[in-house]
Amino acid sequence: MWNLAIFKPSKRSEVDPFIAMDVMSAANRKEAEGTRVLHMELGQPGMPVPDKVRLAAEEVLASGKLGYTEARGMLALRQAIVAHYETQYGVTVPESRVMVTTGSSAGFNLAFLAGFDPGDRVVLTAPGYPAYRNILKALGLVPVEIAVGADTRWALTPAHLDAARADGPIKGVLVASPANPTGTMMTPEALEALACYCEEEGVWFISDEIYHGLSYGLPEETALKYSQKAIIVNSFSKYYCMTGWRIGWMILPEELVRPAERIGQSLYISAPQLSQVAAMAAFDARDGLEAIKQVYAENRRVLLDGLAAAGFDEVLPVDGAFYAYVGVRKFTNDSLDYCRRMLEETGIAATPGADFDPVHGAGYIRFSFAGPTQDVQDAMERLKGWSSCS
Amino acid sequence: MWNLAIFKPSKRSEVDPFIAMDVMSAANRKEAEGTRVLHMELGQPGMPVPDKVRLAAEEVLASGKLGYTEARGMLALRQAIVAHYETQYGVTVPESRVMVTTGSSAGFNLAFLAGFDPGDRVVLTAPGYPAYRNILKALGLVPVEIAVGADTRWALTPAHLDAARADGPIKGVLVASPANPTGTMMTPEALEALACYCEEEGVWFISDEIYHGLSYGLPEETALKYSQKAIIVNSFSKYYCMTGWRIGWMILPEELVRPAERIGQSLYISAPQLSQVAAMAAFDARDGLEAIKQVYAENRRVLLDGLAAAGFDEVLPVDGAFYAYVGVRKFTNDSLDYCRRMLEETGIAATPGADFDPVHGAGYIRFSFAGPTQDVQDAMERLKGWSSCS
Repeated sequence: MWNLAIFKPSKRSEVDPFIAMDVMSAANRKEAEGTRVLHMELGQPGMPVPDKVRLAAEEVLASGKLGYTEARGMLALRQAIVAHYETQYGVTVPESRVMVTTGSSAGFNLAFLAGFDPGDRVVLTAPGYPAYRNILKALGLVPVEIAVGADTRWALTPAHLDAARADGPIKGVLVASPANPTGTMMTPEALEALACYCEEEGVWFISDEIYHGLSYGLPEETALKYSQKAIIVNSFSKYYCMTGWRIGWMILPEELVRPAERIGQSLYISAPQLSQVAAMAAFDARDGLEAIKQVYAENRRVLLDGLAAAGFDEVLPVDGAFYAYVGVRKFTNDSLDYCRRMLEETGIAATPGADFDPVHGAGYIRFSFAGPTQDVQDAMERLKGWSSCS
Repeated sequence: MWNLAIFKPSKRSEVDPFIAMDVMSAANRKEAEGTRVLHMELGQPGMPVPDKVRLAAEEVLASGKLGYTEARGMLALRQAIVAHYETQYGVTVPESRVMVTTGSSAGFNLAFLAGFDPGDRVVLTAPGYPAYRNILKALGLVPVEIAVGADTRWALTPAHLDAARADGPIKGVLVASPANPTGTMMTPEALEALACYCEEEGVWFISDEIYHGLSYGLPEETALKYSQKAIIVNSFSKYYCMTGWRIGWMILPEELVRPAERIGQSLYISAPQLSQVAAMAAFDARDGLEAIKQVYAENRRVLLDGLAAAGFDEVLPVDGAFYAYVGVRKFTNDSLDYCRRMLEETGIAATPGADFDPVHGAGYIRFSFAGPTQDVQDAMERLKGWSSCS
């Protein structure tokens, strides 16, 4: 037994935990004590899926026919995805380049594994979705986080990439539009410039488009319109309200189809079949989904008005998704402590910026407005009277 | 555009494809041409889940309440897993060491990421499940495949490990009992010897127990009985007939709980919630599942009799699972070609050994008997008259 000290976790498992999850636990404890907590820390839709989706799932359940599918997903779902690009973006993509994934989480993992070898440097924005950084690290890759700001409307630009390459070659670039935690979108021109730069320079360009469908005015374009070398990651979790179903898709450049498929066969076998069938129905449920989007649009209005009234005057452009990323540097230099106090004193759960930006995150917090409108209204009412703002 | 040649997949994505999947495609083509194909290439139960499982899924679907769960899974499911170890093995495991996973595929990935750093050597058996080798390679780890044979009843032993360590340190050992592709089980003594060796030597021991519940006489023991440092990977896919649901679990040693949880948060977020709820009901559906197991037992009897009658006299011990791994060296030195001809000439789809054993696989094929009994009977009838055996 003298040898037990050598049982150690791997170095690569030393990734950060999600602070958002700790906030969720604290909020749940507070709720259990009897406080009415207003949940604005969760990046998931509060609405159930439309009836069409539920009925499709019930039908396949009753048939008893659930098993593994091909690693790239059911052919009928891949064809539905092809049709979606045609109708939504006017872009033609061959079915052979579509891969159904177990949520966008699997999409990122497969993109990273198929495109990069250990030591490769991959550019991300700060702020950004923390799982990018964590997955890259676990796979032995090197995240290069570039701080974006108002000067480029929070978009990564070719100039940023030129600067990053001064420190060594970059093998990939990952951007999201609309982005998490900010909701900010890249203009079609900014997206095109970046996609074309990557294509010309032989850098894999990964475009996270999981919040597509949820924009409030700005035009949505897929990077596929500008580059056939772009890797598109998308999901049924957000616009389609299917977080818990774990279902998404990728559009892959020709060169990466077989590598991603081979890895997928071993690493996932296939995405859950029930979710694949339900996802097909989701494409036909736009009426119900647009109605849900109208709720978010109203929530967004209430939130932005309320934040302004409560004295929060630094809010990044909420072009899409269901997040507002709010500067709190006027009130604190420790947004984690600020969120703790907000939860304690007002019952509002929000996420501190440290999850999204290790450098500047201490000055920001994220509100999600994916829940019921009444909750957003009540939260803004409580904030207005809170002593730690305005 | 002169730069496009540098768009290359990663080196680590050069893993083998599943030959079994190619066989499935060829079998499906043959079926589309009008031949009645007897599917013995698939490692998945042909039966639908018991009613209790379906009803539980329908109920949560109707409630509309599906979302992310904690990364380690729903507390109620973790508690049900704890109870399962108590009743099934008489082993007490704290809920804090249970992690629900998106199938055993996620379990292996998380075990490898949490336990090993790039370059670490991990011992596997040959023959063995090919995804082990492929996932290890994709993660930058080094599979050390040790050929096992009749001398140890196809079990890996401490002596094998001593020999492997002569070439360099080993960081992990992975065994399956019952195993894929052989169905062969380790005796409790053999399992204990290996688990204790690993604990004494500070080597992570990963025990694949996904075929537990499907054994035909030999006693089933979990490695958890012998070592609290063992990593247990299990699944609802096989005994519980839930392949397409992508749901499984792990029991982790204390040291790896937080690392696996942190990586899981970023890499999977959580397992599909619908499948988690259905899995809880599966533990209460033993009556239906035992009836299905009786079908496999009958299939096994028909298959073993039929193989003997058809002249196949080398069959590894079919102690469990729903596979027979059959020597065909008498008839061919190319089992891939042999399977192609068998499909063409008899309409029976089986898997060539190359998937499972890069060295000796050319002399073996795998039959799965997870389908209907009638199919197994008809296959044995057809084999008896086939000119390429007996």
